[in-house]
Amino acid sequence: MSEELAPGPTESPPAPRAGPREVWKKGGRLLSVLLAVNVLLLACTLISGGAFNKVAVYDTDVFALLTTMMLLAALWILFYVLRTVRCPEAVPYRDAHAGPIWLRGGLVLFGICTLIMDVFKTGYYSSFFECQSAIKILHPLIQALFVIIQTYFLWVSAKDCIHVHLDLTRCGLMFTLATNLAIWMAAVVDESVHQAHSDSSSHSNTSHSRLAPDQRAGSQVGEDCSCNTAVCQIFQQGYFYLYPFNIEYSLFASTMLYVMWKNVGRLLSSSTHGHGHGHGHSPSRVSLFRETFFAGPILGLILFVVGLAIFIIYEVQVSGEEGRTQQALVMYYSFNIACLGLMTLVSLSGSIIYRFDRRAMDHHKNPTRTLDVALLMGAALGQYAISYYSIVAVVAGTPRDLLGALNLAHALLMIAQHVFQNVFIIESLHRGPPGAEPHDTPHKEPCHGLTFANLDALHTLPSCPPTPTLAGSSPAGPPEAVAIILAPEGHWRRRCLKDISLFLLLCNIILWIMPAFGARPHFSNTVEVDFYGYSLWAAIVNICLPFGIFYRMHAVSSLLEVYVLS
Amino acid sequence: MSEELAPGPTESPPAPRAGPREVWKKGGRLLSVLLAVNVLLLACTLISGGAFNKVAVYDTDVFALLTTMMLLAALWILFYVLRTVRCPEAVPYRDAHAGPIWLRGGLVLFGICTLIMDVFKTGYYSSFFECQSAIKILHPLIQALFVIIQTYFLWVSAKDCIHVHLDLTRCGLMFTLATNLAIWMAAVVDESVHQAHSDSSSHSNTSHSRLAPDQRAGSQVGEDCSCNTAVCQIFQQGYFYLYPFNIEYSLFASTMLYVMWKNVGRLLSSSTHGHGHGHGHSPSRVSLFRETFFAGPILGLILFVVGLAIFIIYEVQVSGEEGRTQQALVMYYSFNIACLGLMTLVSLSGSIIYRFDRRAMDHHKNPTRTLDVALLMGAALGQYAISYYSIVAVVAGTPRDLLGALNLAHALLMIAQHVFQNVFIIESLHRGPPGAEPHDTPHKEPCHGLTFANLDALHTLPSCPPTPTLAGSSPAGPPEAVAIILAPEGHWRRRCLKDISLFLLLCNIILWIMPAFGARPHFSNTVEVDFYGYSLWAAIVNICLPFGIFYRMHAVSSLLEVYVLS
Repeated sequence: MSEELAPGPTESPPAPRAGPREVWKKGGRLLSVLLAVNVLLLACTLISGGAFNKVAVYDTDVFALLTTMMLLAALWILFYVLRTVRCPEAVPYRDAHAGPIWLRGGLVLFGICTLIMDVFKTGYYSSFFECQSAIKILHPLIQALFVIIQTYFLWVSAKDCIHVHLDLTRCGLMFTLATNLAIWMAAVVDESVHQAHSDSSSHSNTSHSRLAPDQRAGSQVGEDCSCNTAVCQIFQQGYFYLYPFNIEYSLFASTMLYVMWKNVGRLLSSSTHGHGHGHGHSPSRVSLFRETFFAGPILGLILFVVGLAIFIIYEVQVSGEEGRTQQALVMYYSFNIACLGLMTLVSLSGSIIYRFDRRAMDHHKNPTRTLDVALLMGAALGQYAISYYSIVAVVAGTPRDLLGALNLAHALLMIAQHVFQNVFIIESLHRGPPGAEPHDTPHKEPCHGLTFANLDALHTLPSCPPTPTLAGSSPAGPPEAVAIILAPEGHWRRRCLKDISLFLLLCNIILWIMPAFGARPHFSNTVEVDFYGYSLWAAIVNICLPFGIFYRMHAVSSLLEVYVLS
Repeated sequence: MSEELAPGPTESPPAPRAGPREVWKKGGRLLSVLLAVNVLLLACTLISGGAFNKVAVYDTDVFALLTTMMLLAALWILFYVLRTVRCPEAVPYRDAHAGPIWLRGGLVLFGICTLIMDVFKTGYYSSFFECQSAIKILHPLIQALFVIIQTYFLWVSAKDCIHVHLDLTRCGLMFTLATNLAIWMAAVVDESVHQAHSDSSSHSNTSHSRLAPDQRAGSQVGEDCSCNTAVCQIFQQGYFYLYPFNIEYSLFASTMLYVMWKNVGRLLSSSTHGHGHGHGHSPSRVSLFRETFFAGPILGLILFVVGLAIFIIYEVQVSGEEGRTQQALVMYYSFNIACLGLMTLVSLSGSIIYRFDRRAMDHHKNPTRTLDVALLMGAALGQYAISYYSIVAVVAGTPRDLLGALNLAHALLMIAQHVFQNVFIIESLHRGPPGAEPHDTPHKEPCHGLTFANLDALHTLPSCPPTPTLAGSSPAGPPEAVAIILAPEGHWRRRCLKDISLFLLLCNIILWIMPAFGARPHFSNTVEVDFYGYSLWAAIVNICLPFGIFYRMHAVSSLLEVYVLS
């Protein structure tokens, strides 16, 4: 509940054909947040209970809950879409910053992968149809339906600032958000259980009580339902490799739903769109790489390809005998240290470039950016926590060998890289568009009188259109016009920043692929497992790593925005 | 990182004798947040590592880290105090909402209890001085010093909006905040370990690996250092009973430091103080209870006394044989169900009274209130989580007896009570002062022109004092003047609200005392322990309950504010 309300008067003017005027926005938000929190905690309880074999909560209970939630959310979405189609004046404003094209594109991409996953899952459960609960086959089918409806809804409505049925819309959006987060939690838990099962063959440790879902299914209905046929095993392997996309789909949808929720009942002036923010403009595809020095993308691509090769070699070698595991780990850590070191230096140089950059900071209200910053800072906590636990284990642990030193360097660089990358991205997102140098922004000067002091309040007042005088003194013209008169020295900086963001983007993709598709040096490396014990270390990694993986994906989408903006 | 920046122009006018103008407030905040997060995660790693006996992190490591942090924070505080004393113009504004008298009074009270605890701790560790590490005696001494310095600092400076050395001050405040949170974590973990040790005698379950600190100390230096003398055991008992006060002290100090951090570099107009918010005015002590119907405080006091008696009977009976434990639990749950049911009804009726209340909502920026709301909503999550886990255990578990039914009713009412109490408190905190009815607030009407649209922006502009015309149309005069002309019907509502807040306040105190001083029906009651297994259930309760206890304390301080405001 952040104090984000615009001051009273800007909320007052009634929207064109709006419902009853909203006296207190936070009250409406409060109810929907309480609804979402309670639904989410109930789901969380069932999902975490279902993950433990000792606990008498079965995965069919979890599937039943998720299916019900998805059906309800889909019904609400259909209601929303029908209502806004019939009555277009229900959405008087659209937020130009919300739902940029790369976010919606990513959503569609991940949505398609989720649909494939659902096909695989249906195939897997159909292989032993006769001894399964019907809900297990119904669940992926309903999920496919839900994904199709939700993707269409977000593609069409992500920018809406709706002004009818405010409370109902808020509750609906929050319920859909809770559904997506519940699906995310279920997928993460299911993947961790699967991972723990495949690890437990190498670590013959009996202290962890998790079992793979197929074993659990067997324990419920008897031992004759096992996945023996080749087709069934392909389905099972396939759906586990597609989980990362499902996880990202849920998170992308959640962020877009949150921004829509923030925008419910929001008033925007029509002039805000063209107000020189530049967040909304999409680059022409022809000049996509023309404005860089090529060094960033080329170096990034090299690292990407090398990383992919090392990841494949690591995955093949790490399940072998002791010596080859050691070798694979040394290789994996060396690559990561090199990559993280380079990323740290590059982020740092980006921040240094900003020290010489005289563009004005953009102080305007922007829920999308606020959320981006909060997610970057929050999701980094997961990787920080893992790194600090590693550091303590290596420093306090007894055997100090090459692997310990590499692990320590890796953990320290991981922290440094997250810190500097966050600083660089957050500063980039707050820069004004190119050319908006402070000397030509009259509204940064102290209070000339009422006219200027009111400039900001005015942008959110739709019923008070800016007078010609005010519009003429607005800080920046259209970005194209400014780009032409840009000084060559500024252009050099801009190219550098574009190179930096592309390099970081490619590095983040490879650092996303490695953990998302199953690299777990945390368990292959015995330092932490010996120090903390298997169950404690597994709990730490399984809780924190999903946030670390989400951080990478979110950094990629933010860096894409930085690339477009700089 | 919430989007709380005031629009550009209000930040621009230079403060009287301020440092260089701050271009981008978020940049300065970012650095200090990163510092605090990293320090806190390091402390968290060591503290959680130290709690597990298997892990080779000793409590001396934790004590050493905490002592270092407290020394550094105390040095920074001394530097800050000296600097502001020497140069009074460094603090040009004071935030009237920050550090109200009851918060500072509570801080001093809890600070004194913490000092007594430190005496007990020093006495306890001195009892076996010869075989202890010196840091264990140094730690409480340094803590006492730190508490004295910090309490003085917060008493004097809680309202400061400092305008020199912005980045250094932000980092110092965040470091002190991190120190307080680390002390809180260490105290909570130490108490949980103690609790687990005293529980493990009744549940002879070997799956949990925690040991009491004295046992750990013995394992390090040999078995001749045990607490045998009567004095030593009194010291040990005493310091564990004083832990809840130390925990609350750290949390109170943290909230005040956070508000100070938010206020660094903030610009306030001198007119904001008297602007009819009423948050700042303290009630005259004579009329403290005169404005109530006495029903609330009397009913609350009865519940408080009955609750205290039941708590003492429960604590005596629960450690006895099976039948008496059962009896004690039935009594405990019955009282809690009655108390929670009444509180739910009373909160609900408070919300209904607000539906007929026509006072305007207060939309002004107020970091203290934003933090209060966030903490109420966030801390309630702990109790929600415990309740949902209980509900799942009772519903899915097999034996359905009286205790199961009581447990279910208790969990459901706990959720309802938290929801309705939060709604009531948050709505109360956002009401304007009494008498500020919407019909006499011209600025709530839609946009009459630039003059009115600018009213809100103007309040934060120190260099543009309100013109006489504007001041004349400001929504409310001083509260005293308004109270006289208050309609009798409004006065009746106001008395009701005061009764409600006093009743809820007293109930929250008794519901704070019970868990804070060691009532753990979660473990005496076997439903959840059997369902989830001891280690999982202990993890859930030990992580979530500290937030639940904090919620009660924080609700008490918020309800006191509601009482004063309504």
